[in-house]
Amino acid sequence: MKLATYKDGSRDGRLVVVSRDLARAVDAGASAATMQFAIEHWHRVEPELRALYDALNEDRAPGAFDFDAARCMAPLPRTYQFVDASAFLNHGHIMEQAYNLSVKKTPGIPILVQRQSDDFAGPCDDYPFPTEDDNGDFEGEYAVIVGDIAMGSSPAQCEAAIRLVTILNDVSMRTHLFRELQMGFGLINAKPATAFAPVAVTPDELGSAWSDGRVHLDMRVQRNGEWFGNPNGREMDWSFGELLAHLAYNRNLRAGAILGSGTVSNRGHREVGSACLAERRAVEKIDTGDSSTPFLRFGDRLRFEVIDAQGQSVFGAVDHRFVPVSEKN
Amino acid sequence: MKLATYKDGSRDGRLVVVSRDLARAVDAGASAATMQFAIEHWHRVEPELRALYDALNEDRAPGAFDFDAARCMAPLPRTYQFVDASAFLNHGHIMEQAYNLSVKKTPGIPILVQRQSDDFAGPCDDYPFPTEDDNGDFEGEYAVIVGDIAMGSSPAQCEAAIRLVTILNDVSMRTHLFRELQMGFGLINAKPATAFAPVAVTPDELGSAWSDGRVHLDMRVQRNGEWFGNPNGREMDWSFGELLAHLAYNRNLRAGAILGSGTVSNRGHREVGSACLAERRAVEKIDTGDSSTPFLRFGDRLRFEVIDAQGQSVFGAVDHRFVPVSEKN
Repeated sequence: MKLATYKDGSRDGRLVVVSRDLARAVDAGASAATMQFAIEHWHRVEPELRALYDALNEDRAPGAFDFDAARCMAPLPRTYQFVDASAFLNHGHIMEQAYNLSVKKTPGIPILVQRQSDDFAGPCDDYPFPTEDDNGDFEGEYAVIVGDIAMGSSPAQCEAAIRLVTILNDVSMRTHLFRELQMGFGLINAKPATAFAPVAVTPDELGSAWSDGRVHLDMRVQRNGEWFGNPNGREMDWSFGELLAHLAYNRNLRAGAILGSGTVSNRGHREVGSACLAERRAVEKIDTGDSSTPFLRFGDRLRFEVIDAQGQSVFGAVDHRFVPVSEKN
Repeated sequence: MKLATYKDGSRDGRLVVVSRDLARAVDAGASAATMQFAIEHWHRVEPELRALYDALNEDRAPGAFDFDAARCMAPLPRTYQFVDASAFLNHGHIMEQAYNLSVKKTPGIPILVQRQSDDFAGPCDDYPFPTEDDNGDFEGEYAVIVGDIAMGSSPAQCEAAIRLVTILNDVSMRTHLFRELQMGFGLINAKPATAFAPVAVTPDELGSAWSDGRVHLDMRVQRNGEWFGNPNGREMDWSFGELLAHLAYNRNLRAGAILGSGTVSNRGHREVGSACLAERRAVEKIDTGDSSTPFLRFGDRLRFEVIDAQGQSVFGAVDHRFVPVSEKN
């Protein structure tokens, strides 16, 4: 099942069910007015939404309309907890090698970063930032949206609470990131709003590509229409269930919480490229002593998309333009 | 005006207006069913709530009942963004001196920590944690709840968006904190749920004690019925407006966002004590080479309260017991 949130002028938008081929959609308001409501009342609402989804795919859903990703907010335009992992250790290894860093990791313990969740960006919204001097960057990531998870839940229990899977662009401002990392208290100015794909899907929608709590599909990244990378989600060093269980050690996770994977990164990065600028720049530095790929420039357009084995776009694309604050649409 | 959220079995509870003396309350449902709704529709709702508040204080509010802090959730039981500052530099100085730390701070830039906001604890709820080995700690703090703040807002604009002031116990697990600080990505297992006072008040309610974007009142902290400290909020090294402006540099803050001050800490700490265990333990270590005050033990009861110049409890008390996970009420 595929779900999205349409803009309607409200903070939470309105829930729509989207066809498998992303061509058509239908309002879900009779079952759940918003995505948050659907996640909170999942067991009651899911069968009704699936019935709508089936009807839509068979072209027999009354009131269906052409789906337009540009009218989408993030699937959850805001929520109550967002945590981003850095679960592809390969990315960290490249960064540490290039910049002679040594992050004091504890073996077996994943890096998780607490993040804000009050103002997510939609997939096609212009993305404003104050100055190119902040060295803007993107990170293509997988993410899961969960139902309630009780403190102390096991990885298997956590994985069973995953309701939806989607992708995001975790925008970073590297100038602030290095300063804030050194301070130790996490990321503030380094991490402005996160942008999400138009569509979130139930794990079963991924078929065999959803395995071991990971998405075994390529994250296709383009900058200004050119290939930037297509690393695969299968190399996550922790499953989403394991990451959630670490997080739930001494806290409850409440319905709607979102966990990101961290930038998708592969050991074969010289063939498949990267999903973020900093990683490509780090590889350049390792190879040549210097980085040539520039950080985000005003006017840059970024696109993130995942295509399944049938050639179908799974989540639609994050496809947005980076603009000065004054030009925000 | 004083507001609280009563438990009603739902995730957001129901909004009540509380009398100045915290003796009586009245349901606010006709104006705003929840605190989140009130914050989002403040300009429309505030006059109605103030009329209820005036009637309640004059003992002429129909449907009024005795106020019971034990029936309260946090004023916002969940919200979309929570950031905690460490805005009393005195606290950091003591910690760095005792443990020979050197946090790589940038002069003029405050420490802010992104935090989760999906599961706040109520003022009198038993507080479960997995093991005493996690070295549990408390931190008495002031906090503000804001309306919408646009990216790039000035400190004055941010201060004008402060809707409510309250206090909180920022519970910390020090065993995890030192490990996570070294990693640089902020706090996860170190920071389980935050507990709030029963009542949040509009800034005008503080009279002259609300000045320069700070609360000039003592934070009275008791452990197991004994005095632990009463440091004053006036020594914040940044105002709440300044902290919010740093946060809003490249992000919007949306209605309901909460900013904490960091543990209240005074240069005269040898007279006024501390609002957290780690600070007292650090002072002991500086003085004697060792720390004697133990971290949180199962069964410990903590109380945080602020009394105004008229002898009135401003926010009611955070007054809760720390228990093993298995004993959660």
